[in-house]
Amino acid sequence: MTVLLGVDLGGSSTKVVLQHGSTVRDQRVLPGRLSADGLPGLAAALRDAAGGDEIAGVGVTVPGILDETTGVVRRSVNLPWLDGRDVAAEVSALVGAPAVAMHDGRAAALAEAVLGAGRGTRDVYVLTLGTGVAGAHVVDGSARPGAHGAAGEIGHVSLDPEGLPCGCGQRGCLETVVGAPSLLRRWQQRTGRTGGAVSAISDAADAGDPDARAVLDEAGAALATALLGLVAVLDPGLVVLGGGVGESGVLRARVEAGLRARATFHVVPPVVPAGLGRWAGARGAALAAGRVAVAG
Amino acid sequence: MTVLLGVDLGGSSTKVVLQHGSTVRDQRVLPGRLSADGLPGLAAALRDAAGGDEIAGVGVTVPGILDETTGVVRRSVNLPWLDGRDVAAEVSALVGAPAVAMHDGRAAALAEAVLGAGRGTRDVYVLTLGTGVAGAHVVDGSARPGAHGAAGEIGHVSLDPEGLPCGCGQRGCLETVVGAPSLLRRWQQRTGRTGGAVSAISDAADAGDPDARAVLDEAGAALATALLGLVAVLDPGLVVLGGGVGESGVLRARVEAGLRARATFHVVPPVVPAGLGRWAGARGAALAAGRVAVAG
Repeated sequence: MTVLLGVDLGGSSTKVVLQHGSTVRDQRVLPGRLSADGLPGLAAALRDAAGGDEIAGVGVTVPGILDETTGVVRRSVNLPWLDGRDVAAEVSALVGAPAVAMHDGRAAALAEAVLGAGRGTRDVYVLTLGTGVAGAHVVDGSARPGAHGAAGEIGHVSLDPEGLPCGCGQRGCLETVVGAPSLLRRWQQRTGRTGGAVSAISDAADAGDPDARAVLDEAGAALATALLGLVAVLDPGLVVLGGGVGESGVLRARVEAGLRARATFHVVPPVVPAGLGRWAGARGAALAAGRVAVAG
Repeated sequence: MTVLLGVDLGGSSTKVVLQHGSTVRDQRVLPGRLSADGLPGLAAALRDAAGGDEIAGVGVTVPGILDETTGVVRRSVNLPWLDGRDVAAEVSALVGAPAVAMHDGRAAALAEAVLGAGRGTRDVYVLTLGTGVAGAHVVDGSARPGAHGAAGEIGHVSLDPEGLPCGCGQRGCLETVVGAPSLLRRWQQRTGRTGGAVSAISDAADAGDPDARAVLDEAGAALATALLGLVAVLDPGLVVLGGGVGESGVLRARVEAGLRARATFHVVPPVVPAGLGRWAGARGAALAAGRVAVAG
């Protein structure tokens, strides 16, 4: 028996999923932020998870930008020791199996498109709403990285040249309306409540709170604008909304209503919630592992 | 010796290109608009072009929307007899060789990306400026049709919700600024000159005419806005500008300057003129023919 391992390197823990073929057999969370010194320990944990089975391949997500041709990490804000390293080659040497690295968001989107909400659809756009807003276009089971590994920055499409300044240097980016900090700021402006997570807004909206609904209405309208342009250019078969507030039913209903109201020639795709939750990155890494795996 | 044939069905003529492998051996223009009754005559012309050589495959462009899975034409405004027909299957039966149909703009973009200005780049966005404005994303030699054959409508991305009404039912679409009718209208407003072709504007701009330059400045700024969003989402390695005014050096310079001035995190791709001219559609059809060809 051979196994595939998907490793999701995060800022506060490392998640590992173990699969026989496409079947998940084990999921483990290794607490703490991995350091460079921790790679041999990670390799030992992977061998331990595999038990006596042969490891056919390992996929490793990277929280940052990597050159998907060479596998070298260009820049990781959360795990800066990764900068300039070919982490897949290091894991491969330690584990004794082929390994491949992948951008974490792209891995999660790949898993959502292939195994999660997009399963069975060939052309899926996955939009993940968190502090940032990222997209990934997954066609025929491949999450397209772009020519320089920089595709998916739909959060930094400017919708309004007179809009709020964005951290990216432009104004009026989608992220300035629907990113979590912006949602919390608008929530605070309306209610005076500070702190908290965007899930509080989404829960309040589900319960009918008018302020929460107004905040999500505005976010839904901006998302519909951005998605209408995306539909014109890419014609995806399905849009998956994930991330903190992305799974809010109120928001999704607003996005779909906005798309339907404003579409003219467009073929409006269904908009569905992500389904794999916080294991999506590791599942995507295991998918990637299957593509570099040795037959066994 | 086997040959590949690319057939570009147009509203006023049919163009045929004959290739041995990837080498063009013959180009013919069959004058007049093809009718349904003309298919046997087209097949005879194709056999004549092939001489004694075996036809390994035929590609046929369709000026309209087709279902690229089944090959059936959904709607062709210019050749309405094609509606509901599987023209590739008809040509295949008449010629006795495999045949495949393809959207004409997508075929031209494929040829530009693979054989023309995009040769050697894996990820190319081709933007064709004419009466309409169409795009095609060509990745690894494949021009992506979208989930419903409707991808590429970058001309109908709304840049300004308060902008001019567009034929598509939205307002402020890119096409309302850079489509040929819009360019001619603005040129007329500035100069009083009516009629003529957009090439007159582009020639006048090349000669330094300030009105022509102002018209192309405005068009270049709108194109830069649309392309900046496209670069954020798709990260293409190269943008090819084609079509009537697309090859204007003044316009291209404005687009590149606009992109460079406004890019923040973006990796700005080179913007280059299309190179294959009016044979691009037939060349793309021949490329498609090579993919369905029988070995010979």
